[in-house]
Amino acid sequence: MISNRVLFTDLYQLTMLQSYFEERMEDIAVFELFVRKLPPNRNFLLAAGLQQVLEFLEQLQLTTEELDWLAASGMFKSAFLERLAALTFTGDVHAMPEGTVFFADEPILRITAPFPEAQLVESRIINLMHFQTLIASKAARSVLAAPDKVLVDFGMRRAHGDEAGLLAARASYLAGFAGTSTVCAGQYFGIPLFGTMAHSFIQAHRNESDAFEHFALANPGNVVFLIDTYNTEAGAQKVVELAPSLRARGIDIKGVRLDSGDLGEHARQVRNILDQGGLAKTTIFASGDIDEYKLEQLLSQHAPIDGFGVGTRMDTSADAPYLNCAYKLQEYAGQARRKRSEGKATWPGRKQVYRLYDAEGFMSADTLTLADSVCEGRPLLELVMKNGRTLAPYPSLETLKKYARQQLDSLPPALRGLNMAPVYPVRVSDELVDLAKAVDALNQ
Amino acid sequence: MISNRVLFTDLYQLTMLQSYFEERMEDIAVFELFVRKLPPNRNFLLAAGLQQVLEFLEQLQLTTEELDWLAASGMFKSAFLERLAALTFTGDVHAMPEGTVFFADEPILRITAPFPEAQLVESRIINLMHFQTLIASKAARSVLAAPDKVLVDFGMRRAHGDEAGLLAARASYLAGFAGTSTVCAGQYFGIPLFGTMAHSFIQAHRNESDAFEHFALANPGNVVFLIDTYNTEAGAQKVVELAPSLRARGIDIKGVRLDSGDLGEHARQVRNILDQGGLAKTTIFASGDIDEYKLEQLLSQHAPIDGFGVGTRMDTSADAPYLNCAYKLQEYAGQARRKRSEGKATWPGRKQVYRLYDAEGFMSADTLTLADSVCEGRPLLELVMKNGRTLAPYPSLETLKKYARQQLDSLPPALRGLNMAPVYPVRVSDELVDLAKAVDALNQ
Repeated sequence: MISNRVLFTDLYQLTMLQSYFEERMEDIAVFELFVRKLPPNRNFLLAAGLQQVLEFLEQLQLTTEELDWLAASGMFKSAFLERLAALTFTGDVHAMPEGTVFFADEPILRITAPFPEAQLVESRIINLMHFQTLIASKAARSVLAAPDKVLVDFGMRRAHGDEAGLLAARASYLAGFAGTSTVCAGQYFGIPLFGTMAHSFIQAHRNESDAFEHFALANPGNVVFLIDTYNTEAGAQKVVELAPSLRARGIDIKGVRLDSGDLGEHARQVRNILDQGGLAKTTIFASGDIDEYKLEQLLSQHAPIDGFGVGTRMDTSADAPYLNCAYKLQEYAGQARRKRSEGKATWPGRKQVYRLYDAEGFMSADTLTLADSVCEGRPLLELVMKNGRTLAPYPSLETLKKYARQQLDSLPPALRGLNMAPVYPVRVSDELVDLAKAVDALNQ
Repeated sequence: MISNRVLFTDLYQLTMLQSYFEERMEDIAVFELFVRKLPPNRNFLLAAGLQQVLEFLEQLQLTTEELDWLAASGMFKSAFLERLAALTFTGDVHAMPEGTVFFADEPILRITAPFPEAQLVESRIINLMHFQTLIASKAARSVLAAPDKVLVDFGMRRAHGDEAGLLAARASYLAGFAGTSTVCAGQYFGIPLFGTMAHSFIQAHRNESDAFEHFALANPGNVVFLIDTYNTEAGAQKVVELAPSLRARGIDIKGVRLDSGDLGEHARQVRNILDQGGLAKTTIFASGDIDEYKLEQLLSQHAPIDGFGVGTRMDTSADAPYLNCAYKLQEYAGQARRKRSEGKATWPGRKQVYRLYDAEGFMSADTLTLADSVCEGRPLLELVMKNGRTLAPYPSLETLKKYARQQLDSLPPALRGLNMAPVYPVRVSDELVDLAKAVDALNQ
């Protein structure tokens, strides 16, 4: 599912590499990945995807099949392909740990490596970090909107391809979700799995009651009935009627799921029916067009819903389906560099982000400065790979999830809401401003 | 990149299958995939992704690793896992050819297979068809907005994962793009590749002129210079100054690329500089936040731009990042079925879509009816897989691209614009309405 084929890259990486090798431009380059501007409706972002980036870098090597194809394409010189065949990643990586809250212009990843290596990996590094950061940031909003509810990722079918489905499960779990419906996310990442039945299951049976009974007998440990196929309240009534005979066979009805209509109103009616039918412990789970906005609305109505399947809108980050992120050269051969294109200028040099906290433990301001500057606050970027090898052991997903929780807990309250808040202060240090001026003076 | 792991699915497919096998519910089921409602800003959709669905179905088989993991998970009974180990896809598939224009409620794919097989494949079939259809439909809008321009997919870095990047290249090429920057899309699908240099290439050199010269010497057959790193017009002037010495070495400057600022205004100035510098044949290529809206705007200003890199906004379908599509049971064991959930009711039975054309060759109305009905017009769904085997040979991507072009050419002019047009007429046949009533009567 995560193939890490080197040719999953932009053609220009290869044409540039051919030139770098010919010119022997193989000095150390420093690239940083950052988001230029937060999208609308995002007061903060949550860094994610680093583990997959490190795995990609550790394994970086073209396959024979890829090399053969490149040779046959006639696009490149054979001397270049020989160099390419031998290429691996030998550099260092500094990064914010996954689950770190960050803001515009702050580097979340820094690559320090011989220029061709650092260049070649650009496209896939962006691709990996962009997506999981996008989804973790979106999922965190649901977690903040419904902190006491069981939230489950249901989005794989409309995620953009298989890797997106798999990694959306990882990113949302890291951000605080309870689990996912995506089976291979359990297999690959140990993420708890949730799921019961679809409407087709009900429709294929003679009637709803038969469908419920058969499902319970086949899956006695995981009995959650989908009750909205024909009429939600009638479905709940059938659940109540079926309960005694299942109980007699030792089967408890764990929950019911609603998937259409006015979820809050249906939940209230269903809760009444279940309670009056002696099923006070049977939970109500809701799905269908759920996102943080819908969660906020349902919670404000005190809808008696215990858990939610959050699907398409999260897995596609529907209200902000991409981040304006970039991976830019900040230093080459010991000299700071800077892009000055209109509206896309970057801060030069190797950078670090320092974070200050207030007396209550909330993050209060960040400073963007040079990596070798002394600065007040906690530095956010750490060395995670040295000479192409990850500093073992990489933290478990559970550890990252706890860290992300702490990060969200230390968010200033003003930034936790779904609406736009005043921008969090990120100061640019004087050293950095001075360096930018000096770099510009060299490139007049 | 396209792994087709069976466990890339929702958990409920497995819990349902366990029940189906225990109950011997293995009669023939018919599922159809359709879009309930077109998203905002879409007057039509373009079907895509069928080839990958057929490959998935032909190869459907759990790996030993997957089976071992399922067994170790303790979630399922061993009798079920034995059945699962033996499961392959033995059914039939009817579908609209890739590149077909379609509308809300029209099935674009129909699966006819033993119930467990047809059920298990739901999640991945949606995942594959949804994404390519989403992107082909988005890309078609750029093709219609800029029919005479060279359009190139530049979006892989911010596509949602690797499969999305690869398949976005395929879907946009099918819809009329000239090619992509994604190298493995050339390797896997033979799609023409485009690409030259990034800003980092310029920044790493002492100055722009050196960078241009070195690039041209290393890549003499593909000389397109990125000229906006510091100042676009100054960059163009350097290109003019460099041209004679390159020409003396037999190297032509094919083009320049702009990537920031007011692209239309820069293009006019750059065109003047190039023309006055004797580079009238050097083309101008633009990238940076391009989508169909920006294309329409630039073309209306007669910006002298020859080609465009269309990136993030297309590969994420940014203005409509998902389709409200569904894969629903329409018949089981010879009986038509129907979901009636609020706002999500479906038309029952095996269906066909017939399309009428007007005297000028434009599509004028569709009829949604039962597959065995006689109806005026051209039927859109064809048998493409029989008993689990694709009816060979599957059309080439070039053939599909030509067909998509014909489809777009026969779109009613009113539907070609970027703004919302009156809804295209899709009639529901009387037979179908009657069947829906009959099915409802059985499930009161």
